[in-house]
Amino acid sequence: MAQNARLQSLSILVSCVLLYPAMTTAQQPALNLMPLPASVQSGAGSLRVDSSFSVALMGYTEPRLERAAERFLRQLARQTGLPLALKSAQTRNQTGKATLVIQTDHASKEIQEVGEDESYILDVSTASARLRASTPLGTMHGLQTFLQLVDVSPDGFAAPAVTIQDKPRFPWRGLMIDSARHFIPPDVIRRNIDGMEAVKMNVFHWHLSENQGFRVESRKFPKLHELGSDALYYTQDEIRDLIVYAKDRGIRVVPEFDMPGHSTAWFVGHPELASGKGPYGIERKWGVFDPAMDPTSEKVYKFLDDFIGEMARIFPDHYFHIGGDEVNGKEWDANPKIQAFMKAHGIKNNQGLQAYFSGRVQKLVLKHGKAVIGWDEVLVPGVPKDIVIQSWRGQASLAQAAKQGFRGILSNGYYLDLGWPAWRHYAVDPMSGDAATLSAEEKQRILGGESCMWAEYVSSENVDSRIWPRNAAIAERLWSPQEVRDPASMYARLDFVSARLEWLGLTHRTVSRHMLQRLAGSASAAEFAALRTLSDVIEPVKDYTRERTAPAEPTSATPMNRVVDAVPLESDAARRFGELVDQFVASACHDAAVEARLRAQLTTWRDNDAILQPLAQRSFLVKEVAANSQDLSALGTAGLAALDAIAKGQPALDAWKAQQLAILEQVKKPKAQLLMIPAPAVQKLIEASAAGGTCSTPKT
Amino acid sequence: MAQNARLQSLSILVSCVLLYPAMTTAQQPALNLMPLPASVQSGAGSLRVDSSFSVALMGYTEPRLERAAERFLRQLARQTGLPLALKSAQTRNQTGKATLVIQTDHASKEIQEVGEDESYILDVSTASARLRASTPLGTMHGLQTFLQLVDVSPDGFAAPAVTIQDKPRFPWRGLMIDSARHFIPPDVIRRNIDGMEAVKMNVFHWHLSENQGFRVESRKFPKLHELGSDALYYTQDEIRDLIVYAKDRGIRVVPEFDMPGHSTAWFVGHPELASGKGPYGIERKWGVFDPAMDPTSEKVYKFLDDFIGEMARIFPDHYFHIGGDEVNGKEWDANPKIQAFMKAHGIKNNQGLQAYFSGRVQKLVLKHGKAVIGWDEVLVPGVPKDIVIQSWRGQASLAQAAKQGFRGILSNGYYLDLGWPAWRHYAVDPMSGDAATLSAEEKQRILGGESCMWAEYVSSENVDSRIWPRNAAIAERLWSPQEVRDPASMYARLDFVSARLEWLGLTHRTVSRHMLQRLAGSASAAEFAALRTLSDVIEPVKDYTRERTAPAEPTSATPMNRVVDAVPLESDAARRFGELVDQFVASACHDAAVEARLRAQLTTWRDNDAILQPLAQRSFLVKEVAANSQDLSALGTAGLAALDAIAKGQPALDAWKAQQLAILEQVKKPKAQLLMIPAPAVQKLIEASAAGGTCSTPKT
Repeated sequence: MAQNARLQSLSILVSCVLLYPAMTTAQQPALNLMPLPASVQSGAGSLRVDSSFSVALMGYTEPRLERAAERFLRQLARQTGLPLALKSAQTRNQTGKATLVIQTDHASKEIQEVGEDESYILDVSTASARLRASTPLGTMHGLQTFLQLVDVSPDGFAAPAVTIQDKPRFPWRGLMIDSARHFIPPDVIRRNIDGMEAVKMNVFHWHLSENQGFRVESRKFPKLHELGSDALYYTQDEIRDLIVYAKDRGIRVVPEFDMPGHSTAWFVGHPELASGKGPYGIERKWGVFDPAMDPTSEKVYKFLDDFIGEMARIFPDHYFHIGGDEVNGKEWDANPKIQAFMKAHGIKNNQGLQAYFSGRVQKLVLKHGKAVIGWDEVLVPGVPKDIVIQSWRGQASLAQAAKQGFRGILSNGYYLDLGWPAWRHYAVDPMSGDAATLSAEEKQRILGGESCMWAEYVSSENVDSRIWPRNAAIAERLWSPQEVRDPASMYARLDFVSARLEWLGLTHRTVSRHMLQRLAGSASAAEFAALRTLSDVIEPVKDYTRERTAPAEPTSATPMNRVVDAVPLESDAARRFGELVDQFVASACHDAAVEARLRAQLTTWRDNDAILQPLAQRSFLVKEVAANSQDLSALGTAGLAALDAIAKGQPALDAWKAQQLAILEQVKKPKAQLLMIPAPAVQKLIEASAAGGTCSTPKT
Repeated sequence: MAQNARLQSLSILVSCVLLYPAMTTAQQPALNLMPLPASVQSGAGSLRVDSSFSVALMGYTEPRLERAAERFLRQLARQTGLPLALKSAQTRNQTGKATLVIQTDHASKEIQEVGEDESYILDVSTASARLRASTPLGTMHGLQTFLQLVDVSPDGFAAPAVTIQDKPRFPWRGLMIDSARHFIPPDVIRRNIDGMEAVKMNVFHWHLSENQGFRVESRKFPKLHELGSDALYYTQDEIRDLIVYAKDRGIRVVPEFDMPGHSTAWFVGHPELASGKGPYGIERKWGVFDPAMDPTSEKVYKFLDDFIGEMARIFPDHYFHIGGDEVNGKEWDANPKIQAFMKAHGIKNNQGLQAYFSGRVQKLVLKHGKAVIGWDEVLVPGVPKDIVIQSWRGQASLAQAAKQGFRGILSNGYYLDLGWPAWRHYAVDPMSGDAATLSAEEKQRILGGESCMWAEYVSSENVDSRIWPRNAAIAERLWSPQEVRDPASMYARLDFVSARLEWLGLTHRTVSRHMLQRLAGSASAAEFAALRTLSDVIEPVKDYTRERTAPAEPTSATPMNRVVDAVPLESDAARRFGELVDQFVASACHDAAVEARLRAQLTTWRDNDAILQPLAQRSFLVKEVAANSQDLSALGTAGLAALDAIAKGQPALDAWKAQQLAILEQVKKPKAQLLMIPAPAVQKLIEASAAGGTCSTPKT
């Protein structure tokens, strides 16, 4: 999925609400669980978690469960600072007396399957806790829930008394990482798998080949990785280790080798697979490119037979992703041999030719004991019913497939690279739209969804911050009951989970400061604070605007060291400011404490530019956001003027309002590929100041 | 070195200046180098560092240099965000055209020795850079200097044109890490070795055995680590890897096995080595304990012969540290066999007995091809001249040893666990005091120094923050010319280097937030900000006060999750506030801009407690600092009142002043083992307000 598909995807999505919806001020929920369980019954009191905490495994056990229990204790130790890790060995057999007794009924499948029992029941009382699950998969989910329950309290660390009965809404809850466009090293993959475990995702979809890189060691065809990867690839040992690592966390690994398009990197070492003449080099630019495999060549199928065979032995999962998206057909059109083949076989167009290719490859996958998963395009007449469609097109496409008897997962609406705020992803439901009208049997075919981290504008340095914390909201959408959909509750819990994810080694919160430090060089403490104040409220442009507004044509060698690469994709500070403004303007009787907080924030913004400008003169990377900094200052000034007008209690003049809104229109224009997020909230203040209004009840 | 030695050490040090000395406001130095080179000549212009940057190795080369060049490029890539790592392979052979041409003359010793040539010359022009060194040791130091030169500029990343001729003042520049009292995992050791490389330290002294743990796998005597470590020990493979890792960075690894005292953990598996009857268990408390090896037993020497032999084969360095400190002699006094032996051999007291032991062990070390290094106590009559004394006693002790012909290094004044601010360590010079009076030949025997990270109150989680950035100031003391001693310049550069050290994976800056997050649980953003405001200006109590004021007797199982464990050992915010106050009170004509900044800071402090108290009600760990929070509020109120009085231009009343100073006295008392650092600066404001004074020149 790159340019074309995405542009179509964008046009479908453009009807979505683009502004942050007014929502009730986030209230602290009783429990900071994410995803929210299917059923939670709160009890009285809480279970103390101190240095004497112990765990016992009962019923069915296996080394994976023992490792999970040790990992659980290590994580609990990290969360609390209690020296628990030391004790794991001693405590695991004191079954009767353990603080947390874990009962697992039986094994799960040797190779994890779609739809296995992942349920668990967690009972916490003031004296002890009991976790029960049919399989280790449920056990591991229950352990994560317990970790989220533990928090600091007035008397020590504790988990509240509670009874939780939980199971996932969908059996396929995935995260796709594109480690082909930019290579993502194994340790970064590992910590993201840790993050997936924490939010109960169970499929890691690994996008491994692209025009820009072939990332897997092939011993059968070593030229694939030797010539197609700039020496940035995963060895087979690394892959096997990662698969074991994922399995240990109840996570399947589905490899994707995109074909017949998105495959230039294959052709560097194996031009004979291509439909054009070559020679081919690793693609450095982004977009959809002409090179495609030759669907008319038996040599290609022989090669793929061997290649898929080799990969099928490395990746144990039942599903094998063959991509299938975005073939522009130009090489096919230009190749007389291919044209002759189409004529001879009555293939009318390139869609037909791709269907022919797809059918042939699917048979090869089947031959090696696997089932195919592919993007919408692989759904062609005659394909076997056990394929899975991954839909970038949306719920309508998914519903249509389901009616035809095919299973599918949704990715439309879950593209993390589009820079959407969490609430927008959260609002996307696989069962909405056309899917809502399906019969119960057809609905069964919608297996879940996958968030997608496409990597044109992602480096191994900032990829965590492009996935998290927003991916946790998608994980909740795919796990929790459909009724769980309040964005205010989601955000309150997301803040908490986001902080917790840091304990796993994810860098989504720390990396921004590291990257800003690079931009700031030898900035003074005050200058650096000013840079942070600015960076806290700007976000990269959304959807595919980044491609279209790039200062120079971006390539895989373009440094990702700009402010747009450093700031989070969603501004917490701007969201909180927006909530405060909503609270303030909701009534004509304005709350003085809220006003004071708004005024303090707006004053900081107004005065920030004066502090930051000297640094902009010394750093070309800060200089790039000098206009954004002026915008923030303008926003502060406008907001303060609005507050002053409101304080007077008389409607502001229309001319003044028009002038302020004109300023805001300028501020809203992206600069340096960055958006000034608090602008709409300040606009609300200006509109409130122009509306006037009298407080009929006295202020309290 | 634990309790006893330290208390003696403390009494020696108590005469040091204990308050932050008034210093000129930090000015941004021309170059952010640390340690400062022996000679720097600035040129005109700068060398651009962009994606075309390349490195060439000329002259003598070896795999270590190639790895160093690749590491250099990776580090430069991290610093700049430029995609340089990819290019290393291609660029290393384009010798003529490389941006940075490295010329190394010849190999250094296969096993790195004390006093090898570590010098280098670095020439940076606007067109290219040239690094020349006799040996790879100098080359590696020069590469670190180049990395520190590169900074963001108005036109891109650049290194200023400069000629640097550099060499260390002392040949022995070490960091000791005690990984025996608390185990420090290999990856944490590794990143600290990276930090040492960055500041040109060249000895990693590894304190490996203690009463509380024996941390090395012994294949000859496996009960040592199996029974003496709680399963927290380094395997021999891990040790070999770490030694290679250190050698790759020009760093020697000196192992320490402390004997005859500090050795309870040995006796758990081998009670026959002890002077008492046993049985022995791993010690959980801190302090000086009775167990000691039996100096009269030939079995002990046979055991040590075999053991030292085994370790000598693992650790290639010429020096082998045998500890030797703090034997209380109680087991010896109580053992009739030992008393009889002393009588028979004319040994008058326990000092004599330890000297006998020390002499025997030194012969064993010699037998295995090594030379002894030990704490002051190993200097006993008749020891060979090639031993090295590590002095916790101070320059006088060192000078005395030098006069007797012994070489030594200084650690007194460099104990990182005492929580001193960087300037205090920085002021300690190995050549001061008695050492300054030595002859040139005697001075040659003072080889340098070592900072010491004793680990009673250090976990693997926060150890980086207990070592860095202060250790960089000690590194400068040991590398740079003696005249380099301006603390303001040091601090300005330290800030910069501290941020840079984060790129190496050190967590000294980020860990504080992580740990505070744990304390804060589900705090609101405002509450968490308030906790940070408080934690930014408090420091753990100094010297050995933490032992004496512990709420319960601390043990190795005590959780280190309190505020005192989370805050940095030196407050940057308080230091900056102090500088601002000094600037403000320096003249009767007070600067309005400075006053505004002081007022903003004091207001934040004054209002902080109201925000923080609700969190203190919810978290027992925040509750612990509730009184500190009230103190900060009181400090803010007092400081603002002083500013108001100064603004009036009339001296404040004596009664008022007395009242304020009484409040400050309360604020200065440690609470929750934490000190309120800005108190003396606020006191200056109060005294200034009481002094009055008229501005004779108009404000500008």
